[in-house]
Amino acid sequence: MNDTSEKHTISVLVENRPGVLARVAGLFARRGFNIDSLAVSATEDPEISRMTVVTKGGARELEQVLKQLNKMIDVINILDHTPDDLVEREIALVKLKATTKNRGEIMQLASVFRAEVASISPAENTMILEITGEGSRVDAFLETLKSFTILELVRTGKVALVRGAKQT
Amino acid sequence: MNDTSEKHTISVLVENRPGVLARVAGLFARRGFNIDSLAVSATEDPEISRMTVVTKGGARELEQVLKQLNKMIDVINILDHTPDDLVEREIALVKLKATTKNRGEIMQLASVFRAEVASISPAENTMILEITGEGSRVDAFLETLKSFTILELVRTGKVALVRGAKQT
Repeated sequence: MNDTSEKHTISVLVENRPGVLARVAGLFARRGFNIDSLAVSATEDPEISRMTVVTKGGARELEQVLKQLNKMIDVINILDHTPDDLVEREIALVKLKATTKNRGEIMQLASVFRAEVASISPAENTMILEITGEGSRVDAFLETLKSFTILELVRTGKVALVRGAKQT
Repeated sequence: MNDTSEKHTISVLVENRPGVLARVAGLFARRGFNIDSLAVSATEDPEISRMTVVTKGGARELEQVLKQLNKMIDVINILDHTPDDLVEREIALVKLKATTKNRGEIMQLASVFRAEVASISPAENTMILEITGEGSRVDAFLETLKSFTILELVRTGKVALVRGAKQT
């Protein structure tokens, strides 16, 4: 069913207090929603954090989760971005095995994707690349790197803002 | 006390299952640790997620939390990065009120910080800027923008990899 596999990006503004994150994550889990990615950080007001949740699932089930979230005392506001025109970004850092032999090839690929070399350790034959962009661009770059040896990978998960004046 | 306000960056590799995130966050909360930022996303293995947690607190209390985390069935590995030489990155997206009058000034500041214009909506007098880098660089840029009207702000939270061959 197409409905149950739809990806949703949700912004949740919450009070920045211990336990809030666990309660929000617990609510998704109890309803059987796995969280594909989550980014939480302070906003311009240090008392308020913003969570960006990417999850898959049916629109109706998700509506129930969002209704329950709205009732939580520490939740200030929620926006499901499905209908919105978004600016979306994430970062990936990827550590590769990079010898003198293949380092040039890796750097060529990086420059095609406008990825940057964040660190290079020639003595240990490793290199850390950094790529920023929409998720699909990050995915495409990581796919390309599969012909090399990926030692370690970390992604921030997506953050998003609505274009224009609309706010969360 | 210096000890209790120390910032720690912690990488946690976990099985990508519903409920894991809530349990990990709950453990920090029960021990009174507030999470300053959290980034969770899939790794090169879709079955495994990587969480990057930034938290403040005493080293001894944190050691207890990490020991308990290590006992959790879905936790694969944990690394407190305090002694490590890290590549650290995060992104902020910031929506500003930008009129024809101050747009030029905003763009000048952005170029000084190598921030980029991600979106511009002249009809609604808004603009979304994107800045990538270490947390301190993002902080400095956001500080500079305080003389303008920040409408909305979202940050991914920090992700980090250790330079060289050491892995989580």
